[in-house]
Amino acid sequence: MTKSSKKLDGLFHDTLKDIYFAEKKILNTLPKMAKAARNQELKEAFEKHYGETEEHVERLEQVFAIIKQKPQGKTCAAIVGITDEGAEIITEYKGSPALDAGLLAAAQAVEHYEMSRYGTLRTWAAELGLTEAVTLLEETLEEEEATDAALTKIAESVVNQEAQQEAAE
Amino acid sequence: MTKSSKKLDGLFHDTLKDIYFAEKKILNTLPKMAKAARNQELKEAFEKHYGETEEHVERLEQVFAIIKQKPQGKTCAAIVGITDEGAEIITEYKGSPALDAGLLAAAQAVEHYEMSRYGTLRTWAAELGLTEAVTLLEETLEEEEATDAALTKIAESVVNQEAQQEAAE
Repeated sequence: MTKSSKKLDGLFHDTLKDIYFAEKKILNTLPKMAKAARNQELKEAFEKHYGETEEHVERLEQVFAIIKQKPQGKTCAAIVGITDEGAEIITEYKGSPALDAGLLAAAQAVEHYEMSRYGTLRTWAAELGLTEAVTLLEETLEEEEATDAALTKIAESVVNQEAQQEAAE
Repeated sequence: MTKSSKKLDGLFHDTLKDIYFAEKKILNTLPKMAKAARNQELKEAFEKHYGETEEHVERLEQVFAIIKQKPQGKTCAAIVGITDEGAEIITEYKGSPALDAGLLAAAQAVEHYEMSRYGTLRTWAAELGLTEAVTLLEETLEEEEATDAALTKIAESVVNQEAQQEAAE
């Protein structure tokens, strides 16, 4: 690593620890969201994303190996805040037809946080000349974007569906 | 408001309070970020976004008026976590050539959080038949997306520039 990248590599390593913590927190949260979801399509989307998240953790471990560091998390206040809001939705809207809409909003906040982190890490990896890391981070970024797009699609149908159910009750 | 939207309107109101709190927190944070930024373009981007954020607060107040509620914030743990991470960057990377890169990452995490919230609120406003609110939320969403794109562009040049400065020092 050249002198020119000395400080950026520290920032890269710090942010890697931040998203590593975040992905593990998400692994912990997704089963609760899948369990709470009423809509089958949404339940399946959460389950599918659980599998992807396991792969994201593995990819991050590969990036740690590339920069010759031990995989290690660092408490990420942002993801703690975002997932706490999701947990609050599960409690407050239990039994409400709006529960799924709330779960979707929480999940999309998570996806957007991850998209910003992976976008940043990819830019920095390119500057640091970590070509393999760029590929790994790019793969995950694309999956997060695809998940967000899928959730947007489900959000529109869920909100309509729940409104109709309510009207029929 | 019809019975079918009874629960969704509660969720809409709660999320409106969440983003109202977040925008005010951002108004408080942006001047600190502008002051800390070394790159002139980045400084100006933060200053420009301050003005936009003031407008976003006003638009939210109009949305509160549409649903006949008093503008009121509700502590949003997510934005508190995201802005705390930004404050940490300012302290930890003071004097480092990587400071601006860190500030950009923090700002993009904020933008992504807002994009997810405004996207969600817009979908719900449409379902609730709040046509005027849809327009207001859409305007802000577009500005947040434009800010994020501008920051991405600055991020690439800042990271290159700082690496070059370091190499010359």
